[in-house]
Amino acid sequence: MTVIDPVAALAELAPVGADPVRGGWSRHLLDDADRGMRAWFVRTAESLGLAVETDANANQWATWAPAGATGKALATGSHLDSVPGGGPLDGPLGVVSALAAVSRLMAEGHAPARPIRVANFAEEEGARFGVPCLGSQLLAGELDTGRVRDLADASGATYADVMTAAGYDPGAIGRDEPRLRGIAAYVELHIEQGRQLEPLGTPVGLATSILAHGRWRLTVTGRGDHAGATELDSRRDPMVVAAEVVLAARDRAVAADPATRSRATVGKQRIVPGGSNAIASQVTLWLDARAEHDVDVRALVDAILTDAANAAAAEGCDVEVAEESFSTRVAFDAALTDAMDDALGGVPRIPTGAGHDAGILSAHLPAAMIFVRNPDGVSHSPHEGASDEDIRAGADALTTVLRALT
Amino acid sequence: MTVIDPVAALAELAPVGADPVRGGWSRHLLDDADRGMRAWFVRTAESLGLAVETDANANQWATWAPAGATGKALATGSHLDSVPGGGPLDGPLGVVSALAAVSRLMAEGHAPARPIRVANFAEEEGARFGVPCLGSQLLAGELDTGRVRDLADASGATYADVMTAAGYDPGAIGRDEPRLRGIAAYVELHIEQGRQLEPLGTPVGLATSILAHGRWRLTVTGRGDHAGATELDSRRDPMVVAAEVVLAARDRAVAADPATRSRATVGKQRIVPGGSNAIASQVTLWLDARAEHDVDVRALVDAILTDAANAAAAEGCDVEVAEESFSTRVAFDAALTDAMDDALGGVPRIPTGAGHDAGILSAHLPAAMIFVRNPDGVSHSPHEGASDEDIRAGADALTTVLRALT
Repeated sequence: MTVIDPVAALAELAPVGADPVRGGWSRHLLDDADRGMRAWFVRTAESLGLAVETDANANQWATWAPAGATGKALATGSHLDSVPGGGPLDGPLGVVSALAAVSRLMAEGHAPARPIRVANFAEEEGARFGVPCLGSQLLAGELDTGRVRDLADASGATYADVMTAAGYDPGAIGRDEPRLRGIAAYVELHIEQGRQLEPLGTPVGLATSILAHGRWRLTVTGRGDHAGATELDSRRDPMVVAAEVVLAARDRAVAADPATRSRATVGKQRIVPGGSNAIASQVTLWLDARAEHDVDVRALVDAILTDAANAAAAEGCDVEVAEESFSTRVAFDAALTDAMDDALGGVPRIPTGAGHDAGILSAHLPAAMIFVRNPDGVSHSPHEGASDEDIRAGADALTTVLRALT
Repeated sequence: MTVIDPVAALAELAPVGADPVRGGWSRHLLDDADRGMRAWFVRTAESLGLAVETDANANQWATWAPAGATGKALATGSHLDSVPGGGPLDGPLGVVSALAAVSRLMAEGHAPARPIRVANFAEEEGARFGVPCLGSQLLAGELDTGRVRDLADASGATYADVMTAAGYDPGAIGRDEPRLRGIAAYVELHIEQGRQLEPLGTPVGLATSILAHGRWRLTVTGRGDHAGATELDSRRDPMVVAAEVVLAARDRAVAADPATRSRATVGKQRIVPGGSNAIASQVTLWLDARAEHDVDVRALVDAILTDAANAAAAEGCDVEVAEESFSTRVAFDAALTDAMDDALGGVPRIPTGAGHDAGILSAHLPAAMIFVRNPDGVSHSPHEGASDEDIRAGADALTTVLRALT
């Protein structure tokens, strides 16, 4: 009986989608890298004797249902796609650990009372079509499928084009009632994004919640002009306003009550015309804001937008604001998490600021998460990492949980 | 005899290189739009019976040398390229006015004592290869030709590639001694960039000087991370440092002695990776700084770079600075300018913050400039403009000057 070592499995995946430009890995829905990851999933699951299926939303499933395993399945897994230039563990660690745990349970002769199903959710990062948790949101019926079919990637190819080319029927996407009903609960293991476990000195923890979060697009319009010839007092420079917004985002988050875990970030900005000797005419920037509760996010964003309006007025610019998304706080299933904690003998519980497929599914079925220590806390970056020891400790924990819950 | 109306000629050029994305016009060295402008120059100059040549540096010249016109030529003109999404007049107004003036002098039977030569200088804005006044600097021998050949545009094509494809010999670029020696003086008419003539109530003025100016590239390196999951106190966000630099540029320029005419601008920024939910790992920004004298620019930039270093240190980021260009103050030729002023009957004299081919040539031969009133002072923007009346007044003034000087 093959037992999968998660560290060795991650090493097998290292060449797939390595990004020579950005560094790290770029694996996006059904591109060459993602197909490579998917082929690995099928090959590895089949080597364990699991039954592999792909659903209409391009999520992959591998089921272990030996004699005696009846009723709804316990599902576990994560995703194999990445952000552009991402790290090696977000989310392959969860998929690799799930397959490793199943192989361990098989090898030790565990006889599960219910099937165990390993999931690879499609396009969790949303890097190709701009919608995070695309596969799990489609599965759960949370997206307008017509709109999804029309989403275009950077090259102009639509989701429908890409799915059709890969042999899927884009007309069949959307809520998959039988599949959801076939799952009793979902447990996702994930590399920690942030640095809460490191000071606690423990390799694994359980998630309490996902911070409420949203994204706002601010379009600041000034007046394009010549950088050399325009007197200072006749400028209407949207770059100055954008800079004030970037600093307001940081300052307002720092000033918030620490208990709200408020954070605000500007990581994307578009400048028109963007010439080095031109005062910009327009700057668009994206504000990402998160906090423990919805009301905390609203208060944080209101304060930043007030600062933005004041900065725009002072510079003679206009600012328009569009709310691109808002995701309410997710509380993971308390009973499921308690049961996992009992099995693990008591581990820390921490919130997360990142969205996850487990967060999407939590509105539809009991869901919970295990985090593995990330010593530097770095995420969405090639520098994301975990020690081999901690990677194995995570797979051990997931094995323990699956054994206890099946 | 055809007399060219400058307003009608500008209307002919309006469709060439109109930019549907940015608005305004985008005409860059030897792209389709620039070729369209060049073809118009040849066609129009030849319709007047001028002898048209293109030099090895891709500058175009059209010469009127009737019987009796001997010795060195009086040159006039400007450029037909633009910044990305620029206005209609910078620099076509100078070329169009030059051809209009020559056509007027021909029609009235003026018999010039010396040839009159109309110039269209290549790539004055430097929008394609990043080097402003590329054609005039090459002509004057002010650039390392090997370095110029290797300059790459945004698509990766080198200057040498682009020149070769257009039928030039990139090995032949550089200082053109015979051509420089053939020019007695250069007079450039240009739309005003800034708003100094409007309050004076006069349609034309003469230039005293070009502010000293330069461009610095700041590369701020932090640590890419997850915008949602990374705690505020463990961030090293280069966007925050870049925002401080944008504000320092404005604040330090405002704080400088008004007599120095100090101005500093950031109009271009590159963010890596540039995702809305990612803390950036690196931000590159370009600082444009100008002031009356070289020492004023140095003091201004030193202050801004000190602020940048302090902001980077506070955020745990590194900042690297590269000086991309530095142009010393230009004083235009006083005797030539006095002679023009006499011909015009006394007009205002103003400095400019913008670089010009006339500034490059002023180190090699007598050079002077005529500015045409820009009511809003807007430049490097689709909103740049001048009234039809003022456009015609500018061509009248240039006609008067050419008549008096030849």
